Amino acid sequence: MSGGAREPGRSVTSKVLAILGAFDAARPQLTLTELAARSGVPLSTAHRLVGELEEWRALSRSPDGRLRVGPRLWELGQLAPNRLQELAHPWLQELFGSTGENVHLAVRDGLEVLYVDKVYGRRAVPIVSRIGGRLPMHPTGVGKALLAYEPDWFVKSYLARKLERPTTHTIVEPGRLARELAAVRAQGYALTYEEMTPGSCSAAAPVLVDGRPVAALGIVLSSRRARELPRLVEPLRAAARGIAASYGG
Amino acid sequence: MSGGAREPGRSVTSKVLAILGAFDAARPQLTLTELAARSGVPLSTAHRLVGELEEWRALSRSPDGRLRVGPRLWELGQLAPNRLQELAHPWLQELFGSTGENVHLAVRDGLEVLYVDKVYGRRAVPIVSRIGGRLPMHPTGVGKALLAYEPDWFVKSYLARKLERPTTHTIVEPGRLARELAAVRAQGYALTYEEMTPGSCSAAAPVLVDGRPVAALGIVLSSRRARELPRLVEPLRAAARGIAASYGG
Repeated sequence: MSGGAREPGRSVTSKVLAILGAFDAARPQLTLTELAARSGVPLSTAHRLVGELEEWRALSRSPDGRLRVGPRLWELGQLAPNRLQELAHPWLQELFGSTGENVHLAVRDGLEVLYVDKVYGRRAVPIVSRIGGRLPMHPTGVGKALLAYEPDWFVKSYLARKLERPTTHTIVEPGRLARELAAVRAQGYALTYEEMTPGSCSAAAPVLVDGRPVAALGIVLSSRRARELPRLVEPLRAAARGIAASYGG
Repeated sequence: MSGGAREPGRSVTSKVLAILGAFDAARPQLTLTELAARSGVPLSTAHRLVGELEEWRALSRSPDGRLRVGPRLWELGQLAPNRLQELAHPWLQELFGSTGENVHLAVRDGLEVLYVDKVYGRRAVPIVSRIGGRLPMHPTGVGKALLAYEPDWFVKSYLARKLERPTTHTIVEPGRLARELAAVRAQGYALTYEEMTPGSCSAAAPVLVDGRPVAALGIVLSSRRARELPRLVEPLRAAARGIAASYGG
């Protein structure tokens, strides 16, 4: 029964986790062959493990037969504690209610922002952030707002890499980015214009607890309405302060 | 390495899944001993598997050292497709925006309702529904709205069991419940008064696609404001119809 017994050095658990870890936002659906290749698990073993995972509804099948994350993992994942999201959600809701614009909340995880909550309506501009999704830091409002409050050594090592450039507007020159982050820190918020997605602009403010950026709150508009961003900065910052006060208290 | 090799008949994968499945809303945090007992996995095996799951961040530790679902499973779970929730969310948002009340969306899973989305603000009454959470059908507005549209054989077998009674207001007499479900079907919505939670009342409408109840949309108020429920029924039903049209189209 056990692949681990046949391949010493790699436990069955690690193979199960490799199979689950093969799915990500860029590849939410995989054929068995793709899944085996991405997880590094031999096809026959993958076939058997996938069968057990499907039976438990950890994986399910799309109409075309490809594998994807199943409803039971969604339900299980909802049990993970997320005090920040719970405290912040009513503030996001209120900011959405008073502005009618898309708002989202993100934390830093490694060198990326991870979106933990999002409030949007029927009329708002479509945005690329997805709850549970990740984006690079430097092209996003929330990413700039977080990066600006990280220690110098962190920012230096972030800027030392080759930086992704999702649009022609993305600022990637290290010197220019460093100056922009200093400005974000001085003014307390970040603004972006079509740096992540053509057609969208954003404002974001850090959620600072004891001077530490625990999260950032962002608001996204169609770039045709970029001139309206400045009037949204104060409600945005007030909500970020409200979240910080709830979180720190 | 392999517990499966030592205990033929139960695979390592099934043990890993039994460990994950030991967590639920009633027991989101467990000690290793509790986890072993609930999963039926021997303590030494559980210890080893938990170590691998923790390393992958599928499990994490609470400040008191107990185990709980970790952030990686939350992130993975967000990849599970949920077309209904995506289509419905803007309608929930709009209903919340126009009424200022808690709204939630649930589907039937087995003999329970499973909450798939919820929109709430800072001033709304606290409600027991939780995204990813489950409740019995008969004491909840969304549950009644769903049950009323199930086939007779299903309703009969639901009512034939001993029904939970979370409050003194919960209707559990089979004959009375059956009459109430017929009324729900005739009028197109359900009302509850403190049947699930003392202090809360609710209205709910089914999301009907080709006559089939694919979900139910509910709104929850403090029972002090029960007399305001009737005026919320039309906006609620309109949103449910909007969701049905998006879903069916």
